[in-house]
Amino acid sequence: MTEITTARPGSSLTSAFDIPRPPGLTWYVQSRMPVGYEVSLTRGLLNPANPVLARSVGADGRGTVRTLVVVDRAVDELYGPGLRGYFDAWRVDAVWKVMPGDEETKNLDQVVEVTRAMTDMGILRRTERVVVVGGGVLMDVVGMAASLYRRGAPYVRVPTTLVGQVDAGVGVKTGVNHGTHKNRLGTYFAPEVTLIDPEFLRTVEPRHIANGLAEIIKMALIKDGALFELLEENVTRITNHALADCGAAMSEVVSRAIAGMLDELEPNLWESVLERSVDYGHTFSPSLELRADPPLLHGEAVAVDMAVCLALAVGRRYLSEGDAHRALALIAGCGLPLTHPVFTPELLEVGLADAVKHRDGLQRLPLTDGIGSCVFVNDITADELARALEFVRAYADGARADGPGR
Amino acid sequence: MTEITTARPGSSLTSAFDIPRPPGLTWYVQSRMPVGYEVSLTRGLLNPANPVLARSVGADGRGTVRTLVVVDRAVDELYGPGLRGYFDAWRVDAVWKVMPGDEETKNLDQVVEVTRAMTDMGILRRTERVVVVGGGVLMDVVGMAASLYRRGAPYVRVPTTLVGQVDAGVGVKTGVNHGTHKNRLGTYFAPEVTLIDPEFLRTVEPRHIANGLAEIIKMALIKDGALFELLEENVTRITNHALADCGAAMSEVVSRAIAGMLDELEPNLWESVLERSVDYGHTFSPSLELRADPPLLHGEAVAVDMAVCLALAVGRRYLSEGDAHRALALIAGCGLPLTHPVFTPELLEVGLADAVKHRDGLQRLPLTDGIGSCVFVNDITADELARALEFVRAYADGARADGPGR
Repeated sequence: MTEITTARPGSSLTSAFDIPRPPGLTWYVQSRMPVGYEVSLTRGLLNPANPVLARSVGADGRGTVRTLVVVDRAVDELYGPGLRGYFDAWRVDAVWKVMPGDEETKNLDQVVEVTRAMTDMGILRRTERVVVVGGGVLMDVVGMAASLYRRGAPYVRVPTTLVGQVDAGVGVKTGVNHGTHKNRLGTYFAPEVTLIDPEFLRTVEPRHIANGLAEIIKMALIKDGALFELLEENVTRITNHALADCGAAMSEVVSRAIAGMLDELEPNLWESVLERSVDYGHTFSPSLELRADPPLLHGEAVAVDMAVCLALAVGRRYLSEGDAHRALALIAGCGLPLTHPVFTPELLEVGLADAVKHRDGLQRLPLTDGIGSCVFVNDITADELARALEFVRAYADGARADGPGR
Repeated sequence: MTEITTARPGSSLTSAFDIPRPPGLTWYVQSRMPVGYEVSLTRGLLNPANPVLARSVGADGRGTVRTLVVVDRAVDELYGPGLRGYFDAWRVDAVWKVMPGDEETKNLDQVVEVTRAMTDMGILRRTERVVVVGGGVLMDVVGMAASLYRRGAPYVRVPTTLVGQVDAGVGVKTGVNHGTHKNRLGTYFAPEVTLIDPEFLRTVEPRHIANGLAEIIKMALIKDGALFELLEENVTRITNHALADCGAAMSEVVSRAIAGMLDELEPNLWESVLERSVDYGHTFSPSLELRADPPLLHGEAVAVDMAVCLALAVGRRYLSEGDAHRALALIAGCGLPLTHPVFTPELLEVGLADAVKHRDGLQRLPLTDGIGSCVFVNDITADELARALEFVRAYADGARADGPGR
């Protein structure tokens, strides 16, 4: 329910009144929209003994309920039978929509495609849910469709990739790329619930595990020194199977990443504050992502961005050279890049200028203030950018010289 | 600022913990998004002596500020020089975007067109505003564009038609038509301020004045008996010039309509309650609007819908036949239609079925409970629809037999 906190000059309306003159007659409308959602870490999501997914679409196994399941094509091949079996067991009449989930299809056409499926099934506006099963791109596309369809329909997120489980799946942002701009169009629209089952990670290939690790490293660098150390200790052991097995260490890695993310997001869900520590690694990376050919994964671009931000922090004496080297080693150790041929001083300047527009006129650049803490700066110069790049390149060259066993 | 009302099991995260098992580990995110906006009735909006419009885009006449002005093509021809002169006087660097504002162009392409203009000028995300000057369609299109651009950019509404000033301009809905569905895609996104100057109405042709009067009659029928009587007394005097002159009676008509609308909207801005009295006349009209050829204006379709709802209320004994005839006479007296060739019992059934989907499985049909009050019903039958249509046709035939002087 909406809460009213306002009074309007309505009493004067009970009788005729004169022509309003400047400043005229003004009504003030004030309200607060309550938003709540759950993020649940669960095991055996597709096991019919686990009621969590069924409950999320309103099923109790007795009466039939309808739902629209939008599933990533690659996920459908691996988990389609399991999903169908689960929904059958719970008497969920699931309309199936299989879609691509790659960055190239993250566009408005795909959003329209999802809304068309909603129209075609005549989905009820509030009680029938859309379930999206897939990676970060599909989360964003389907979330945007749900937010636009009749101005908002409830949806459930089931992220199946690491980046989806620790990043795209747990916030309230939706969006698509447009023109040459990443996530240029979108909405803030919370799912009812996000259901995270690490078992899905078993079939995620190493490059995409690394993609998600970039966002986990980000959380470690800006707010969780203990997570950083946990990652350092386990860097050689973090594999798709280890994550899927969800032993104590892996469980703690994933949970800390999610908890840290939600802790940063919750007080600022609509980004009323533009100094966002979770923007760490996301200042220069959008420009890099758009220009890299062959394309980089999101987390790979974030890794390259974080590397230069570590060097910027060294230049400002927020971070020791030793700690910067530890962080660079962790990034590289996770199989992520530190540099990229098109990541030049010129591109950095372009990226920063665009971030300034996105951040309403100021750089608001998050940097590490020691590992596990964050500070914002607004006066990074072109010179510093160039020097920071050199610092990273020098480290990367040295690391290569040391050989792969480093 | 966002208010946090939740506690999360974050404390357990400071040490390693076991594999979460069902029900697993769950985080609850809760917040409330504050929304506030103003609706101002003002005179001489384009007179440089009136600072209201300048202030709305952050101008004080000293430093230069930028803004994107999206203006309806027809409005630009009449008021373009005035708008430009005003902004020049206040040192507003206004980027101009002239667009069509008719129902046929209320689509996603136009939304994208506006976001492209925002990208092209490199608008700052929070401090540079978009101003939309035009009718209801353009309000909805530009509002949707503002809501999607970087997930939300501030905008200012200057409605220039009567329907814009008492309806589309004062709420928080945005939207476009899609496929064969009206307003199928959209958002809830409040402007910073809506500035209403009745002077714009001087150039609005009679058919479009009637279009707006339909929404005013709606407010009168569902919640404001005094407004109904005021309209009855003045029915022959409500012209574009009278509204623009904004004498005591006209001022009260417009103000009561706006105040009534805001009073209904404010506690239910996001339509968490689907029993909405402001949906009166909006149950069957979307289907009519889509099928009428030549097209009807929105208010004309609403008028035809209201007529049948008056008859439905008579059938249920919520309204006396005499009051129904008074209301039908007012609608017709404002130059609005009561019937339409394609408005058949079959179309009424289709329209009701679609409304049921939009209202999450129930009819939630608002009817007048006496003039000036509202009741909701969920069990209207096909039979009642057919009888109601006959009641209206009988009245309309009688009114025609009485001649135009009735």
